[in-house]
This record gives sequence, C-alpha cells and structure tokens, in this order.
Amino acid sequence: MFKKIFENVQNETPLVHCITNYVTVNDVANVLLAAGGSPIMADDPKEVEEITAICAALNLNIGTLNERTIHSMLKAGKKANSLSHPVVLDPVGAGASALRTETTFELIDTIAFSVIKGNISEMKTIYAGSGTTKGVDADVSDAVTEDTVSEAVAFAKDLSARTNAVIAITGAIDIVADSQKAYVIRNGHPSMAKISGTGCMLSGLIAAFCGANRENLLDATATAVCLMGLSGELAQEKAVKNDAGTSSYRAYIIDEISKMSADKLAGGVKIEHR
Amino acid sequence: MFKKIFENVQNETPLVHCITNYVTVNDVANVLLAAGGSPIMADDPKEVEEITAICAALNLNIGTLNERTIHSMLKAGKKANSLSHPVVLDPVGAGASALRTETTFELIDTIAFSVIKGNISEMKTIYAGSGTTKGVDADVSDAVTEDTVSEAVAFAKDLSARTNAVIAITGAIDIVADSQKAYVIRNGHPSMAKISGTGCMLSGLIAAFCGANRENLLDATATAVCLMGLSGELAQEKAVKNDAGTSSYRAYIIDEISKMSADKLAGGVKIEHR
Amino acid sequence: MFKKIFENVQNETPLVHCITNYVTVNDVANVLLAAGGSPIMADDPKEVEEITAICAALNLNIGTLNERTIHSMLKAGKKANSLSHPVVLDPVGAGASALRTETTFELIDTIAFSVIKGNISEMKTIYAGSGTTKGVDADVSDAVTEDTVSEAVAFAKDLSARTNAVIAITGAIDIVADSQKAYVIRNGHPSMAKISGTGCMLSGLIAAFCGANRENLLDATATAVCLMGLSGELAQEKAVKNDAGTSSYRAYIIDEISKMSADKLAGGVKIEHR
Repeated sequence: MFKKIFENVQNETPLVHCITNYVTVNDVANVLLAAGGSPIMADDPKEVEEITAICAALNLNIGTLNERTIHSMLKAGKKANSLSHPVVLDPVGAGASALRTETTFELIDTIAFSVIKGNISEMKTIYAGSGTTKGVDADVSDAVTEDTVSEAVAFAKDLSARTNAVIAITGAIDIVADSQKAYVIRNGHPSMAKISGTGCMLSGLIAAFCGANRENLLDATATAVCLMGLSGELAQEKAVKNDAGTSSYRAYIIDEISKMSADKLAGGVKIEHR
Repeated sequence: MFKKIFENVQNETPLVHCITNYVTVNDVANVLLAAGGSPIMADDPKEVEEITAICAALNLNIGTLNERTIHSMLKAGKKANSLSHPVVLDPVGAGASALRTETTFELIDTIAFSVIKGNISEMKTIYAGSGTTKGVDADVSDAVTEDTVSEAVAFAKDLSARTNAVIAITGAIDIVADSQKAYVIRNGHPSMAKISGTGCMLSGLIAAFCGANRENLLDATATAVCLMGLSGELAQEKAVKNDAGTSSYRAYIIDEISKMSADKLAGGVKIEHR
Repeated sequence: MFKKIFENVQNETPLVHCITNYVTVNDVANVLLAAGGSPIMADDPKEVEEITAICAALNLNIGTLNERTIHSMLKAGKKANSLSHPVVLDPVGAGASALRTETTFELIDTIAFSVIKGNISEMKTIYAGSGTTKGVDADVSDAVTEDTVSEAVAFAKDLSARTNAVIAITGAIDIVADSQKAYVIRNGHPSMAKISGTGCMLSGLIAAFCGANRENLLDATATAVCLMGLSGELAQEKAVKNDAGTSSYRAYIIDEISKMSADKLAGGVKIEHR
C-alpha cells in the first residue's frame, strides 16, 4: 500500500490549501514541496473559498488562531466539504485555552473532517466534547506506551466513530484509526520533540497524501505518519554522524523527505495492524 | 554593469521596507542581509509611512494578503512614491482569487511601481487588466522556453510600456525588460522550484538592488535576477556534492548569496541583450 | 552561577509564552527548545491570559506589532504580573516610528517588566520617555565600545532604576545591569549581525532563563546573554571550518545552543563585574 500511495503524491502533485500557524508555516510549505505536493497559504475570508476550490486538499491548524483566521477556517472547510476535498484538522493546543477548545468544537461541528491529527491530550479534549458526559478523562492514559497501546487503539476507534474522521494520535507510538481498523506505528525518534514543527509538517503531509489518495484516507494518513517518522530516524543517523544540533537536525528531516523513494519508505515502515 | 551595481549594494547597505507574506518572510530578511542590505518588516497602517520614509526601497508582496495589510501596502506605496523611493511589486497568486487579482490592479492603479516581478501567469493577469480588452490570453504561451523567448520579450516590453515599470518575468528562462530594452537570463536551476521562497527572496533582492542603484533600475533588477539564479546554481553543485535534500539546498542558496563577490557574479551571469 | 542557572532551565523546561514578530518566530521557538525550554505562541486577546497563566514566563516583542497584538501584549502582561511571572520586553525598533515608541511607553507604563532588552538606540528611546526631560540623547554614545563602557554601564544602571527592570543592552559589547550591579559581557561574534533573529532569540532565552530562575533575574539574564554570544562564537568556528555562508551559520548557532553543557558554558563566558 505504501508504495502506491507515495507514488500517487509524486505523480499528482496535490496542491494543498493551508490555513496554519505562522510559527511553522515555512516548514509546512517546504515539506509539502519535498514530498511532491505543492503549498498555497491563504487566510483572508474574502479569498479562502476560491483558493480551496483550486486545491486538492485543505489543512486547518489552529496553532496561532485568531478571530479572522477562525472565520476563514470555517468558510474554507465548508467549501472544501461541498467539493468533497479532504480536510485535515490539527487542533494545536486544544484544551490549553477556552478559545482553542471551543474553536475546535465549532470546527468539528461545522465541517466534516477527513482526518483529525493531534497528541493524546488534544484528542482527549475532543473526545470530551464529542457528545458524551464522560469528561476530559476519556479512560485512556496520558501517553501512549507499550502498556497502553490497546486502550489507545480502542480510544482512537471510538473517537473515529464519534467524529466520522480518521484519527491520528501522535507520540512516541503513533495510532492511526478509523472506527473499524487501526495501525500502530513505531517510526520516529525522540529527537523530533526537540524541534518545532514536526506535528504541523505532518498535518500538511497528511493533507497532501489524502488529496492524492481520496479513496483510501486511512492508509494515506498512515503512510504520511510513517514517512514523517522514518525521515526523523534517517535524519537522526545523519545528525549523529555529523555531531549536529537541533537546527541541522530539522533541516535533515526535510532533506530526508525530499530524498525518499517509494521503496525506501516501504522498507522502513514499522507498522502493526490492530 | 554587474560589478558596480553589486558593489553599490554592499557599500550602501540599503534598508528595505518589506510588507511581505508570513510564509517566507524569514528567508527574505536573511537574504537581504546576505546580499549586503538590511530588512525591516512593518505592516500596521499606523506606522508604514514612517517606516518606509527611513528606508531606501519598498517591497510589496501579496502572498498572504489580508484587509489590514492591503491597506498598509497602499499607504506605504503612496508614501514611497512621494519620496521617489523604488517600489517593487510581487503579485503572488494574481489570477488565483478575485481578491488577489483586484488587489493587484488596485495597487498598480494607485502606486507607480519601479519593478513588477512575477511568473508568466501572474504577468498575464496583470496584462489583461492593464487597459485593453485582450483578456487573459495575452498572446504569449504559458511558459517561457527557447521557442517562445521572442514573444515573451515582446510581451514584457509591452507590459512595461503599459505599467511604466521594469518587468521581471521569472521561470526556467527569466526576462527583465523596460519598454525599449530586454535581458534574457539563463541562470538558475530547476531544483529552485522544489523549495519555497525563491521568488519572494528575489523580490526582496530587487528592492535592495534598486534602492542602491536608483538611476538604473533595469540593470539593477537584472543583476538581482542573475545573483539569485547564479546562487541557485552554485548551491546545486554543493547539494550534489553533499547528497543534500531540499532544506539544505535552501540554506546553501542563501549561503552562496552571502559569499558572492562582484567578480564571481560578473563571471557567472548568463545574460543576453535583446 | 552560570552552571546552576543553566541547569535549572534544563531541569525545569520552562514553558514560555511568546507574543513575538512573525519574521523570526520560528527561530525563537527552536532556540527555546534547544536551550531546554518550551515555546507557546498565542496572540489573540481572547486567549492570551489563559495561555500566559500556564507558562513560566512571558516574552513580548514588538517587531511586527499591530493593533490586535498590542492589545494582547497589554492583557498578557497584566495577567503575568498578577501571577508574578517574569515578563521580558524586546522593544524592536522603538524610536523608528511613533507607533513603536508609544507602544513601548504604554507597555512600560502598564506592565512591570522583569527585563528590558534592546540595542543602545532602543534603550535611549526608552530612557527619553522615562520621566525626565533629558530627551533622546541620554548622555551615552551610539555604540558601546571599550571607550564608552563606563558611561554605558552608568546609563544601564540609571535606566534600571527608572524602570525597575533588569536592563540588557546588546551590541559588540553587552551590558546587563540592575540599579546596583552590572555585567559587561564580551561574548559573541560580528557575524551575528549578518543574520536575522539573534536579538529575538535572545529575548526568548532570557524569558526561559528568568522563568527557571525567578529569584535571580540579573544573573539569569546575564547567563542567557553569555549563552547566545558563546554559541555565536562556536558557530563561527564551525562556519569558518566549513566555509559556510550566513544561513548555515544561523543553523549552527541554534545547533550550538542545543549542544551546550553547563561546563562548556561556564568555561566560555567572558564576563566582567562592574
């Protein structure tokens, strides 16, 4: 599956409309180009519908949300839904402020998301607001470890059933699930937590991969997660070899994505089906 | 000509006021410093006139335009005109949304631009709105190739006559023209299309080069285009040698600009006079 | 002192709320992670109080201020004061426009800053507005050199007494002072002026170091200044060795910060007590 999905991105050059935070926006743009996609950033309410209409997918990231961009996200998302474009949500910091939490709920209530990607804390915030009274503690621990993989998988499937979106929970171990099927992914390296932007880059990649693989969003998402993680591993090897620090490591990750081949990716994935 | 123009930038350290998109703004700041200029970014309507007054040139880029920054661009542009500062327009995405197209027209109607720089598609959008009824298909093909150079040169000269600005059309082959004279530039490398920001960096450089060479905007623009392209070539050599990916390649381009000398530039330009 | 202060940052991972300019925001995020802290950027008035409440320190930088973010800075600063969180001001460009100068005064009048960091020109602007009629020429020359260190130290102590903040004046020679005590720091390298963002990165670091060392803001600030300067020196050695340009040099600086140890820092500081 990985090879075909990866090749589709390379062959179709999906244009991805990103309304994303200004901290990591340059990384998102460059990682999309590195993976074979193409970025366009536009966040004014007056143009987001037109811009998203010419794209293959939409990526919404609330990392530095404000009133204007929230409005733009809602407009762009509805338009993308009307055109059946894949729409990805990265609810950065949901739970950290009422504005982020309520915006996340409003986005999920208004837009049919194809994929929601976040860390376990953000995902638990979404779960708590998704129609039950279970509250923030969603019967899943605060980090996905080998001991808690099973409960995390069950949580992800449940959240997918509630939101009707593919769920990607990122951490030391990544979970990608729909309501029926889940992947447990063990690519990646702890060094990735020492740089800004790997999460935002991944959201962008997921949008590109879904844009070029609309008939298979679960596998497209899983492939993007593997690509990001594997590139982090390969970059780590180079960083160790060069005695590099974190800034060079960040460049190496994007470098590895740009140098990835379908075969290298297929040979490096560490994925388990649950 | 190249040596003197390049040396003027190094000697005068032109301060460039940039109202530019937030995707590539850091690259623009760093490339200006690398080339011997100095950047200042300011986009609030309350201060843009004062800021542009202390600068040598103004760089307007609509890549992530919004209502507030459009207003700022108009104010800054008028002020720069009143002070006879060079003003550069990079109409990113003109044609992709009504907001971008109409903003481009409003900017051109309101401000006397010294240089307009864009790809052929953006330039055709401008041509279509520049007072004739010829429409978007401006009798020039969609990419400048060896077969279409002559018509592109004629198009650029015509557009320069209509806008009274130096025209820089970027692509595999670059054209820089005023109404009478044109340069065809064959510097650059296809890898530059795999990274974000080369176009925005070039606009910044053009502003700096015009700011330090006000009496010769055509040659200043052509020199900046050559500098960007030659640096892309030299960076490509290094990238191949180091088996680098796209993120390292991006850094190498700015590195090469910072390491450029007047002699190296003069020896590396691939320019033809038409 | 340096070792303990540095280790506190590594051990406490201070979360720093940054309302900072969009030019260098990514560098600020990455340098905070490199030094052992953690960044969160949030600039909407609706959430800044909540966000700053969960952080260890607040970093305000007016590099690309606008009406909305000025409002957010005021709200966040008052909240941080009410929680006794350290608050750092980087008055980028104070003196260059009325908006910047007046905003700087409004921030200083409204918020009790722990540290104010700027170049000599910005600091003189603040001095001029800090309650006397001495005006912009604050009896201190325009650059801190060996000949003018003594008057700069006196100026910094006086400004600290007026603002009740630790004062960090950056330049070829850095001064860090409260009203009683001053450090003269000779770390750093002239190449740092050829890249964008070293000043903004330093403000972020100062906030992190103060957040993890609240009982000793003067020494925390001095340590952050030494860390930035020493990393610039070490990066320069690597840049010379690799014949690198300015973009690689910028990456090397963050690399060196991420590779710093308490011992290496303590061994490399060039600091004098006045």
